[in-house]
Amino acid sequence: MPRLREKIRSRIPKMRSTIKDEILGKYADTVIGNVTVKQVCGGMRGIKGLLCNSSYVDPYKGLHIRGIPVVELANQIPEEIFYLLCTGEIPDKDDLKRLQEELYLRSKVPDHVWDVLHSLPKDTHPMTMFSIAILSMEGNSIFKEKYGAGMRKADYWEATLDDSLEIIAKLPAIAAGIYRIRFSLGDLIPYDKSLDWGGNFAKMLGIPDPKGEFAELVRLYLVLHCDHEGGNVSAFTSRVVNSALSNLYYAVSAGLNGLAGPLHGLANQECLKFVLAIHEKYDGVPSKEEMRDFVLSTLKLGKVIPGYGHAVLRATDPRYTAFFEFGKKYCSKEETFQIVKKLFEIVPGVLKEYGGGKIADPWPNVDAISGSLLFHYGLDMFDYYTVMFGVSRVLGFCAQAIMARALQAPIIRPKSVTNEWLIDALKKKK
Amino acid sequence: MPRLREKIRSRIPKMRSTIKDEILGKYADTVIGNVTVKQVCGGMRGIKGLLCNSSYVDPYKGLHIRGIPVVELANQIPEEIFYLLCTGEIPDKDDLKRLQEELYLRSKVPDHVWDVLHSLPKDTHPMTMFSIAILSMEGNSIFKEKYGAGMRKADYWEATLDDSLEIIAKLPAIAAGIYRIRFSLGDLIPYDKSLDWGGNFAKMLGIPDPKGEFAELVRLYLVLHCDHEGGNVSAFTSRVVNSALSNLYYAVSAGLNGLAGPLHGLANQECLKFVLAIHEKYDGVPSKEEMRDFVLSTLKLGKVIPGYGHAVLRATDPRYTAFFEFGKKYCSKEETFQIVKKLFEIVPGVLKEYGGGKIADPWPNVDAISGSLLFHYGLDMFDYYTVMFGVSRVLGFCAQAIMARALQAPIIRPKSVTNEWLIDALKKKK
Repeated sequence: MPRLREKIRSRIPKMRSTIKDEILGKYADTVIGNVTVKQVCGGMRGIKGLLCNSSYVDPYKGLHIRGIPVVELANQIPEEIFYLLCTGEIPDKDDLKRLQEELYLRSKVPDHVWDVLHSLPKDTHPMTMFSIAILSMEGNSIFKEKYGAGMRKADYWEATLDDSLEIIAKLPAIAAGIYRIRFSLGDLIPYDKSLDWGGNFAKMLGIPDPKGEFAELVRLYLVLHCDHEGGNVSAFTSRVVNSALSNLYYAVSAGLNGLAGPLHGLANQECLKFVLAIHEKYDGVPSKEEMRDFVLSTLKLGKVIPGYGHAVLRATDPRYTAFFEFGKKYCSKEETFQIVKKLFEIVPGVLKEYGGGKIADPWPNVDAISGSLLFHYGLDMFDYYTVMFGVSRVLGFCAQAIMARALQAPIIRPKSVTNEWLIDALKKKK
Repeated sequence: MPRLREKIRSRIPKMRSTIKDEILGKYADTVIGNVTVKQVCGGMRGIKGLLCNSSYVDPYKGLHIRGIPVVELANQIPEEIFYLLCTGEIPDKDDLKRLQEELYLRSKVPDHVWDVLHSLPKDTHPMTMFSIAILSMEGNSIFKEKYGAGMRKADYWEATLDDSLEIIAKLPAIAAGIYRIRFSLGDLIPYDKSLDWGGNFAKMLGIPDPKGEFAELVRLYLVLHCDHEGGNVSAFTSRVVNSALSNLYYAVSAGLNGLAGPLHGLANQECLKFVLAIHEKYDGVPSKEEMRDFVLSTLKLGKVIPGYGHAVLRATDPRYTAFFEFGKKYCSKEETFQIVKKLFEIVPGVLKEYGGGKIADPWPNVDAISGSLLFHYGLDMFDYYTVMFGVSRVLGFCAQAIMARALQAPIIRPKSVTNEWLIDALKKKK
């Protein structure tokens, strides 16, 4: 029994009393925000409608995990981040070891998952394979079993933790297996008990990694993408599904379906394509002047510069910075990295100038660089990048679900209105 | 080419101008509602944050499909309802025939879907099978193919319609196939071109139906469950996923994952279990006094009466009424139906009395009766009921997605806040 479980258990009374006494008890009917017509038509953008304590994004300082800026976590490993997401603390050595052991014990993927993946058409998208693989294990849900047997509400979080550990433990084997099956790379590579969770994922992909640099990149990738508040499409989807007490297999699969959307999880792939197009056009790294011309002509065609700008951020994404430090250390000679670097020198200035000060965020986000680093190590199957994103983001889905069930959070059910209702209401207001 | 497509196309300029000119143009920054702390902690309940024109639920008059009370649609068939959801009109005979022909032409399920279903563990939940079956066809998405080839935004709705027709056409075969595979009922039953969509579903299930009553019930079931605003867990999930431009295979699968939740799609099963428990306890239909005692003792144990009460409704659900009329006509001698009827006579009064007037809705909803009717015709695999619900609800998912893409609706992305942020903001307000 890992201490993670006891740590969460010990935190629950305080979590509940914060909501019950300090928030609802004092302020239940206090208005905390408005909803404008623009927001009703605009995808709820900016409606403060959810609590999420695992992470928040500061417009200038970027992602914070349980209050800690994500750059300060760049040297942790993903298991530590999962523990942090769930408890607010980084585990000590012993707690980490227990968590890793538990993940190892739960790491065996049921045989039928491979049968299911093999029975899909050969050209199935890796994200589709990933979502199906998770769903195909739904029968193993501990939450489902215990719910069917009449589990008390107070125990929902613990069954959700069990399902989380079951799913997370199997992610390296499943995601790496999908890579090897989908791209016909030969036999699956077995789990190595001596390695950490992220190290296993890197090894099971089968990318040559004599110096362990790729494994380090994979760990960093899995840390940086783990969570991003509660309202982004994938996390929110997962929360909505889980709020009906659909178990985590359903919720994780649904979240991955959202992540597969071009507007959400496909950006890193678009960025790398942009970098490679520059590389091809200039047969290498362009000069500053050439780069400036290229960026300007892209903008003049009405296109965006992939990886620059962000819905929330108003400064360089610290996740970009963390990858940039990695790149400087290990891939400074790689031409694609040099192009990424040069874009960083050129694009913000061009955007500010070209946009006449109207571009809210001319800075790079994490997607502007992540693909280039994966590419450097030979991971050049672009369609796979979202799966890596998903492996990381599942940590956040699970932590958010454990918290929601610990708080016995209700079903998520906003109200929709018709055009007619809205126009009527607006006319009456006038 | 069915006229449905042209009908939608012809409606789009008006739809867009209503949003652009009449709503956003005049009122973009007008505040239409508040968000209270209770709502932030309470699953967004009541936050008016979404437009949905396919249906709305009036607290007293219940579900309306494109403005028409659902009881008035009880004699239509599901294909007509899909057409209505998408266009606001019931198709004429010729338009209906064209739509049915198109569905027939697209009805063949790819062989690999059966391989995938057969490679799942034998005890996989039918809803899991259903969601996986849809996902396993994701590679066939026309939206995905065209998006990859650089489709214009203005054409998104049409590719979404294509995917809708592809998916809807295959639902009878897939859902009925799942029933026969999961419960080992023998060979699959082929599609019958001479039958309508709902009639095919009924026939392919393989339930004996000499008088066509069961097919009539299936059509009614598929009409009554087709849509229920945009904010319920399954429709909302499907919308959120599709808003990232994840294609409909992803969005429908995710919606089904939400529907599988005990708090959402499992209620009809719970209601039937309650009715059967009464039947067993009294070895038949109890007297009014016995029923009253049973209901009261259930309430005194702190339990709810399944199927009574509703989050939005404040009167008898008209979908209940429509099923009730069916029951009176065809199954009045069935003891489970007589129990359902007697519950209707007893429960609202007891709830009003017992709750001391504090129970907002003592009236029956659709779930209080639907299971009993299916059971009467021999559909007694409770785990399957949510699949039937899903087959119907996919019509709404698809119609809502087509509308959203026609309006080029943005990604759905509400904002989450942390406890600390919220407490700080509340203190400042004070």
